[in-house]
Amino acid sequence: MRLIELPSRYLVFLGDVTDPSCAKTAFGLRDWTPERCVGEYALPGGTVSAGLPPLSPAQARRHGAEALVIAIANYGGVLSPDWIPTLLESLEAGLDLVSGMHMRLTDQCELRCAAERLGRRLIDIRNPPRDLPVGNGRKRTGKRLLTVGTDCALGKKYTALVLTREFKARALDADFRATGQTGILIAGTGMPMDAVVSDFVAGAAELLTPDAPENHWDVVEGQGSIFHPAYAGVSLGLLHGTQPDAIVVCHQLGRERLVDLPDFPTPTLEETIELTVRLARRTNPRARCVGISLNTSGIDQIAAQHALAEHAARLGLPVADPMRGGAELAELVAACLEP
Amino acid sequence: MRLIELPSRYLVFLGDVTDPSCAKTAFGLRDWTPERCVGEYALPGGTVSAGLPPLSPAQARRHGAEALVIAIANYGGVLSPDWIPTLLESLEAGLDLVSGMHMRLTDQCELRCAAERLGRRLIDIRNPPRDLPVGNGRKRTGKRLLTVGTDCALGKKYTALVLTREFKARALDADFRATGQTGILIAGTGMPMDAVVSDFVAGAAELLTPDAPENHWDVVEGQGSIFHPAYAGVSLGLLHGTQPDAIVVCHQLGRERLVDLPDFPTPTLEETIELTVRLARRTNPRARCVGISLNTSGIDQIAAQHALAEHAARLGLPVADPMRGGAELAELVAACLEP
Repeated sequence: MRLIELPSRYLVFLGDVTDPSCAKTAFGLRDWTPERCVGEYALPGGTVSAGLPPLSPAQARRHGAEALVIAIANYGGVLSPDWIPTLLESLEAGLDLVSGMHMRLTDQCELRCAAERLGRRLIDIRNPPRDLPVGNGRKRTGKRLLTVGTDCALGKKYTALVLTREFKARALDADFRATGQTGILIAGTGMPMDAVVSDFVAGAAELLTPDAPENHWDVVEGQGSIFHPAYAGVSLGLLHGTQPDAIVVCHQLGRERLVDLPDFPTPTLEETIELTVRLARRTNPRARCVGISLNTSGIDQIAAQHALAEHAARLGLPVADPMRGGAELAELVAACLEP
Repeated sequence: MRLIELPSRYLVFLGDVTDPSCAKTAFGLRDWTPERCVGEYALPGGTVSAGLPPLSPAQARRHGAEALVIAIANYGGVLSPDWIPTLLESLEAGLDLVSGMHMRLTDQCELRCAAERLGRRLIDIRNPPRDLPVGNGRKRTGKRLLTVGTDCALGKKYTALVLTREFKARALDADFRATGQTGILIAGTGMPMDAVVSDFVAGAAELLTPDAPENHWDVVEGQGSIFHPAYAGVSLGLLHGTQPDAIVVCHQLGRERLVDLPDFPTPTLEETIELTVRLARRTNPRARCVGISLNTSGIDQIAAQHALAEHAARLGLPVADPMRGGAELAELVAACLEP
């Protein structure tokens, strides 16, 4: 496979972040792959911590870190000039650099020269592999689950991670398949779907979820929404390419408008299920929606229980909030695994 | 607008092609933009002519050519080493180079050095503009028509070109909007949709069809098919981004299987119309299918007439073969223009 392969142990870099929402990637790494996270490093002025041991690049190297990971989101995906000394220090200390920012490590002259001199790697995870294939639509062996959404940013990655964990807890052979930057950092591999040239999106999704043993599950992180005026193309290519047997539709309770495009109403769950399954059957006639992941983060536990029950009754499907777990989640997992 | 802008007068380069089907781009240029074509140039061994005056690069320059255009399709989109002397000679003669091949002119060291020394341009039309916007879904002024297909390679570009010509013949203000290599060479501008990074496909389509006067028509060349397992993502992004008022569905009579993927049946016209219009209405609630472009190239004139009439009766829509023209085409054009 020609997927990105990341070093296995990280020093998590927090820059001088003061807003916790800019450090979500760091929290995701801590929560989902603590075994990869040797420590964290913040610049003076930074006030956010992921609760990992604070280590300098040299200390982290001695504790087994192989790379410094830029675990920050900022507007425009920019590499700040203020980070360069730390990044150079990390290269000198023997760490590779990993970034999911739009601005590329390899476009920074100083970093490129230092990495070359020291034999270190600069890994821009937004760079898809070269020579991606065009999709061929051939049915592959093994089972696949795809999380899809009524919009962006409402829990598709989180749902896929929770389902992978639950599958593994039931002794099933399952892999989380990452399609976005944070997911790739967590999994250590994946496909940066939003950076793939459009003709190759379905082919890239096929490459991400190759032939596998009959009882193996690929649990694929969805992207965008087939109803999203900007990103529907990516979502449809991913849907066709992954050939999901099981589809979990993700929705945020109360989100009535698309988050970036308030002129566009969020589609209903009913129409999302119907259209997604219809489109998916072009490449997998057995595709079906197995249940709903409902993000109820805006309300309390009792109201959430009611909402889950009400949706389940209306749709005739299991409806769970993976953040809350519980019997609903167990039901959703069981529905995924029904033959 | 940040679209590609090509030089306006070409020397058409035919290489050493012996199979006319590899020179379709040259024929397209001759047929659709003869005013751009100063002459043609073939290498020894080449047996195909587009019927243009044979001119050397230097002669073509003296006749007003501004660029040599590589008007050849080959497997893999490769620039042959045998062409390099001619390409260098053309740069020396004062011509820019234009290519739609996958392999880039700017990746050829000799060409890059010569172009730099001579102040010539190397234009790879598969390079989309930088800094494309993400789609915003905002409704734009002016009218748009999109040709869509039940498969690839069955007449979407040709249909859009014929409809543009017919609109202009009726004194309407219309622009052909190219989305593929040959179309871009014909129009001298456009958007190489299949080379755009997936997140920006809808945004690129929005850029290609900007706000315009209320009675202006953008007639957009479609790409792929929303039913195509490899290319549906591009097709959906283009559909959402162009916000077509009028959709013309293109189909080849008798094509029962996708041309590259014989395991996949070609969708019916009925389901293509229904699903395309449904998806299009996400960004333009007034989108409608105005008629069918039926490629009847496999049968004779009388059988074609019957086929067109039979399809029109069944679908309740005008059905024309733009290659054959006639009353059916006039009806299709009239249907496009109905308010």
